[in-house]
Amino acid sequence: MSELLERGAARTRWIRSRMPLLAAVRDEFAERRPFDGRRVGMSLHVEPKTAVLLEVLAAGGAEIVATGNHGSTQDDVVAFLRGQGMTVFGARDDTLAQHEANVASVVEARPHILLDNGADLAAGVVAAGLADGVVGGTEETTSGGIRLRSELAGRIPFPTIVINDSALKAIGENRHGVGQSVVESLMRITNLMIPGRRFVVAGYGWCGRGIAQYLRAFGGRVAVAEIDELKAFEAALDGYRVADLGELAEWGEFFITATGHPGIITDEIVDRMPDGAVLANAGHFPWEIDVASLYARASEVTELDAAIERIDLPDGRHVILLAGGRMVNLAGREPKGNSLEAMDLGFLLQSLSLERVATAASTLVPGAQPVPDDLEREIARRFVRALGADR
Amino acid sequence: MSELLERGAARTRWIRSRMPLLAAVRDEFAERRPFDGRRVGMSLHVEPKTAVLLEVLAAGGAEIVATGNHGSTQDDVVAFLRGQGMTVFGARDDTLAQHEANVASVVEARPHILLDNGADLAAGVVAAGLADGVVGGTEETTSGGIRLRSELAGRIPFPTIVINDSALKAIGENRHGVGQSVVESLMRITNLMIPGRRFVVAGYGWCGRGIAQYLRAFGGRVAVAEIDELKAFEAALDGYRVADLGELAEWGEFFITATGHPGIITDEIVDRMPDGAVLANAGHFPWEIDVASLYARASEVTELDAAIERIDLPDGRHVILLAGGRMVNLAGREPKGNSLEAMDLGFLLQSLSLERVATAASTLVPGAQPVPDDLEREIARRFVRALGADR
Amino acid sequence: MSELLERGAARTRWIRSRMPLLAAVRDEFAERRPFDGRRVGMSLHVEPKTAVLLEVLAAGGAEIVATGNHGSTQDDVVAFLRGQGMTVFGARDDTLAQHEANVASVVEARPHILLDNGADLAAGVVAAGLADGVVGGTEETTSGGIRLRSELAGRIPFPTIVINDSALKAIGENRHGVGQSVVESLMRITNLMIPGRRFVVAGYGWCGRGIAQYLRAFGGRVAVAEIDELKAFEAALDGYRVADLGELAEWGEFFITATGHPGIITDEIVDRMPDGAVLANAGHFPWEIDVASLYARASEVTELDAAIERIDLPDGRHVILLAGGRMVNLAGREPKGNSLEAMDLGFLLQSLSLERVATAASTLVPGAQPVPDDLEREIARRFVRALGADR
Amino acid sequence: MSELLERGAARTRWIRSRMPLLAAVRDEFAERRPFDGRRVGMSLHVEPKTAVLLEVLAAGGAEIVATGNHGSTQDDVVAFLRGQGMTVFGARDDTLAQHEANVASVVEARPHILLDNGADLAAGVVAAGLADGVVGGTEETTSGGIRLRSELAGRIPFPTIVINDSALKAIGENRHGVGQSVVESLMRITNLMIPGRRFVVAGYGWCGRGIAQYLRAFGGRVAVAEIDELKAFEAALDGYRVADLGELAEWGEFFITATGHPGIITDEIVDRMPDGAVLANAGHFPWEIDVASLYARASEVTELDAAIERIDLPDGRHVILLAGGRMVNLAGREPKGNSLEAMDLGFLLQSLSLERVATAASTLVPGAQPVPDDLEREIARRFVRALGADR
Repeated sequence: MSELLERGAARTRWIRSRMPLLAAVRDEFAERRPFDGRRVGMSLHVEPKTAVLLEVLAAGGAEIVATGNHGSTQDDVVAFLRGQGMTVFGARDDTLAQHEANVASVVEARPHILLDNGADLAAGVVAAGLADGVVGGTEETTSGGIRLRSELAGRIPFPTIVINDSALKAIGENRHGVGQSVVESLMRITNLMIPGRRFVVAGYGWCGRGIAQYLRAFGGRVAVAEIDELKAFEAALDGYRVADLGELAEWGEFFITATGHPGIITDEIVDRMPDGAVLANAGHFPWEIDVASLYARASEVTELDAAIERIDLPDGRHVILLAGGRMVNLAGREPKGNSLEAMDLGFLLQSLSLERVATAASTLVPGAQPVPDDLEREIARRFVRALGADR
Repeated sequence: MSELLERGAARTRWIRSRMPLLAAVRDEFAERRPFDGRRVGMSLHVEPKTAVLLEVLAAGGAEIVATGNHGSTQDDVVAFLRGQGMTVFGARDDTLAQHEANVASVVEARPHILLDNGADLAAGVVAAGLADGVVGGTEETTSGGIRLRSELAGRIPFPTIVINDSALKAIGENRHGVGQSVVESLMRITNLMIPGRRFVVAGYGWCGRGIAQYLRAFGGRVAVAEIDELKAFEAALDGYRVADLGELAEWGEFFITATGHPGIITDEIVDRMPDGAVLANAGHFPWEIDVASLYARASEVTELDAAIERIDLPDGRHVILLAGGRMVNLAGREPKGNSLEAMDLGFLLQSLSLERVATAASTLVPGAQPVPDDLEREIARRFVRALGADR
Repeated sequence: MSELLERGAARTRWIRSRMPLLAAVRDEFAERRPFDGRRVGMSLHVEPKTAVLLEVLAAGGAEIVATGNHGSTQDDVVAFLRGQGMTVFGARDDTLAQHEANVASVVEARPHILLDNGADLAAGVVAAGLADGVVGGTEETTSGGIRLRSELAGRIPFPTIVINDSALKAIGENRHGVGQSVVESLMRITNLMIPGRRFVVAGYGWCGRGIAQYLRAFGGRVAVAEIDELKAFEAALDGYRVADLGELAEWGEFFITATGHPGIITDEIVDRMPDGAVLANAGHFPWEIDVASLYARASEVTELDAAIERIDLPDGRHVILLAGGRMVNLAGREPKGNSLEAMDLGFLLQSLSLERVATAASTLVPGAQPVPDDLEREIARRFVRALGADR
Repeated sequence: MSELLERGAARTRWIRSRMPLLAAVRDEFAERRPFDGRRVGMSLHVEPKTAVLLEVLAAGGAEIVATGNHGSTQDDVVAFLRGQGMTVFGARDDTLAQHEANVASVVEARPHILLDNGADLAAGVVAAGLADGVVGGTEETTSGGIRLRSELAGRIPFPTIVINDSALKAIGENRHGVGQSVVESLMRITNLMIPGRRFVVAGYGWCGRGIAQYLRAFGGRVAVAEIDELKAFEAALDGYRVADLGELAEWGEFFITATGHPGIITDEIVDRMPDGAVLANAGHFPWEIDVASLYARASEVTELDAAIERIDLPDGRHVILLAGGRMVNLAGREPKGNSLEAMDLGFLLQSLSLERVATAASTLVPGAQPVPDDLEREIARRFVRALGADR
């Protein structure tokens, strides 16, 4: 067991050393002790970056009771956190039933503050009639925010700050982070080159803008398909070819979806593509490419390499499907996901929002709400300074 | 006189031939006749581009009664418009009193629809007690919009669509149009090169983003000064050096203001600049560079070329001031201002907004309001199609 | 006359103040006096930038005997130079016969050193049997270099350094200088926008690379036509669409030639272009667009604005011809030509090459030759330092 | 064994399907049979891409006798090739002595044509007195070319075409290929972000130009250190900060060497870097960063992750060394190396050069020489066409 703990400890070192914003907050919290006497319940991926966040909260006086998401818990990190005196439920091979029991265990520990994901803990404390003991919390995801504003609307007596609503995350993560990691992943997974290749980006929101920008910066020839007229206008003035996806299907070689909507790359679109077209999705949900239909009508499906499938179609053409239509920038043999700087930013948003909840809940309204403007500005200022942007 | 008319006619040809959106609306209006029996009163610069707009309205059945802005009326265009049967008041050399009389003449002609600028006609009809005869109108400028929403708030019984509020104008004109024309003007006026030169852009709004982007695209080394934390964050992730203007003053060679605020380049900032620094303003008002103080403390002011002044300072250094601190992209010997495509877009917004006012005023609310969303989308669609973006 | 002199003096001030490399050489020459007792004969455009070069040579002890090119001599600059004690022949309105007499006058003055253009002085001293009195010289142009290496090969007993052969000029002037001034000129002359517009660049040499790069940097959609396979390969990897000019004729809106070869845009190519296509040439000679044939078959030719002609074709289409097919970056109402920094670089090459000729002719071979490698490196070093590239 | 063979076969599929140029040559060779009756001896990495090349040669009638480089032979590919009837010597775990015996075995098989790497086979046939039986060959590497032109100069009676001399490889591989793979590798290995980060690129040759270009395209702030004055001039006009490496050491966060020279990042340079600086090498040899000295004076060396070492220095600072100073774009857990398109290009150069040797050796001179110009142009044409650059 101590070997597991040692491995978990080792894996946080590089990460911790490259998260200067969290390091600074840790020192501040050690002095301010905003969580003294408070129990923080967490439900979020248990992996090295999260471990660094939990250390920061513990330095601020928090007692930690945590569990992970189903299927992503890393046992060495669990061992490492337990070694630091935290209560952590869960293991990599937990069944779904066991995972639900873990979440329930966190709820039963009667946390004062929730560090939530998908609103699981919020729903849990409401169902258990324990909401009155909660001072407030944060919610990491947009979909958790939606749940708080619909299913749980009016039923949460405490404030919850939704981290993903932040403009800093839209620019830092969606435009730049996703834009770059998609280009990096395409190269890493397929070993194909970018310059001179023809790419079709479906969707010109924050992610699509970033993907198109960085593909072009790498010498790719990029066209954009976008049905929103105002975004299409922006894409055209940004210098991209802008046309219907059906028309572009005949021109492109690589097709990358980032629309947020289901059913973008349908059979009809695939049938206009050239032989050997490469399909990848960068949107959050694996529904933008109609993968089910592709598999159903394939004459043969061959796994060529990690995250690369060849799908032969009855008409003799084939397409290449990356990552089975799931987020391409999290796929392949060694995906890295968001950069350490982006995580440092995101977890700084978490830390200071949790402090606000712990020390000034009365300045907040009950229910879901964005990060307070003064915190956003404070965090933007710290990020720019940590970057040394003035040098 | 016929020579003047001929010159006015000739000068509209190139322009009309490069405004395909207006040409199409002219054909539609000739069929739909939205302005039949309506008198349109205009107060806007009388120059060739406006002449093309007035032709479009006339083709839609409008009776035109027009005047220009003080000091910018072009006599050959007046002659050309009168030759087409329009009533036009004003001449280049009008006194201010004469100009005001011209505006009053338009008001007295009892227009049903106003094509306004700075809310002069709106204020006029209210003052004259003629507002009830007005169906509605458009307002070209942001400052006119502000006047409608403050001084005239609640006193305008008819709807006025404020053209400059459009997102299409923010992207088409401010980011791309101003960004490029500032770079073009710097080269045209000074004959200096861009690559490798050090530029400081003050302000990272739509204009500043465009200026920074295009200077860097031309090989310039660009730093940004921005006090808004969220914009500074965006600039840093866009890859610019971001620092205090005072600090950047010591590093830069060219300083371009685009903040919208007065007193950006003060004596204190100038005093940290290197000898020979070049100062230019791209903001709407000539107040971002403290020109009055520069002149006051200069040991000598020398005009070196059109729009180039050398200002010697008591300490032996000198700075170069472009265009006396007025908008640099409208200065020098042959400024072109906004591109024909941008004007085509802006006047398409005008034309269809005026038609909406004329034919469906009841769908609008009284007072200032943005361009209706369906019109924005329709116009975006037409612009992208006219651009041939799908080819 | 003194008014003319005063105007000439005034016009050199801005220019001289922005040529720091020449200013430094002037100081060095005043100390080293490399031209003491030498007569320098010049045949080069007499305009303000050249005046600054002549001042530098005079500061080095040279006696100046100069004339200009036919048709470009600026009388105020002549007055200004004479006011400094130089001998200058020529005036703006000289006939060709008078111009030739002026060149002959320079030759008859028995110059020791030649600052030549098109090899006119070199040919003159050979014809006059005065070549033995010449220590050496420089030649500004590539075509002069060709003449020295063909017609005059073996007949020049003195060394001539050909300035235009320098790699520094290829990069500094052709790639960056021409690339940017073509984009600036297109905007200045036509008032059209770049983003989203479709451009076809014919030729992917140094100029074509620069033009394509800067049009794309400004948001233009750019395709390249190039028959050299290796350059086409480079263009394709640089991310451009690369195809036959005939094929691209149907796609483009703007066509810019930079091949160095005649007969690129022929009738056949024009006949595949869309109505309203804009044609411009950036190559040195006005032969890349077959202008003679365009005019010959035009149903009508209309001058729409300075440097803009509309050419109606018998089939009902029209094209727009800029600058009559001459170099577009030197055309229109206020062309600026090369940047002051580029001229500073070019004339630094001239100055130090002339010094080498004057003080170390024996280290050079007779006839045409490139700038000595050590001078190129010294000049590159000075340019980078003057730019403050290390800041 | 058949499982090994099956694995080798599977691993070539994705690769073969994305090398259209080789696929076409295979068909041509099957018709032309240029190698009928010829034995081709190969000494080159035995991995899937090479396997595809050998298939092409076999389709052209060649009898294949092959071995790999020491330490990189992939056993499954050996099994796969043997399954196709080729003679292949070597295994992954061969000792150096065994490897040398393998090369000797290829030589002893008396090949008529050599597909060589580092000139090992050429030296072997000369040493064995078997050079007269050789018609000619190709050499993959620059260093093999150097060996042929020095140690073996005058001793090779047959022509050898040096593939790496090709301009196509300089642009396709060095500028674009290495430039992009270095950026991709930095992100993949470190999980750090590019935008706003400060990079110092040492060396502005083809690789350095590519690295600087792509880092900047990704939003990095890039400075260049280059001692060659002409390259420094080019870098400055390309818009980079250009300064001494010592000076830049204090400013940068990431340092990437691409000079081709040893001893660039010395102790003195490291001592001026900020705490936590990241060091990577992109040059061919692992000598640009003085790694030996770094290790020697380190107070502690910690492996943080694959290809990431933390080196603590006695003064309390630390630096991060990537890939132990070896080529960073070939390091980490899942490096991909050159893109499939770049390999397709490189092996097309190989294939057609070997055909030229086999069928027209008399048109070549003995000894090392570049790829014939007509072949270069033919290959450029095919590459551009395969890219579909005209669409």
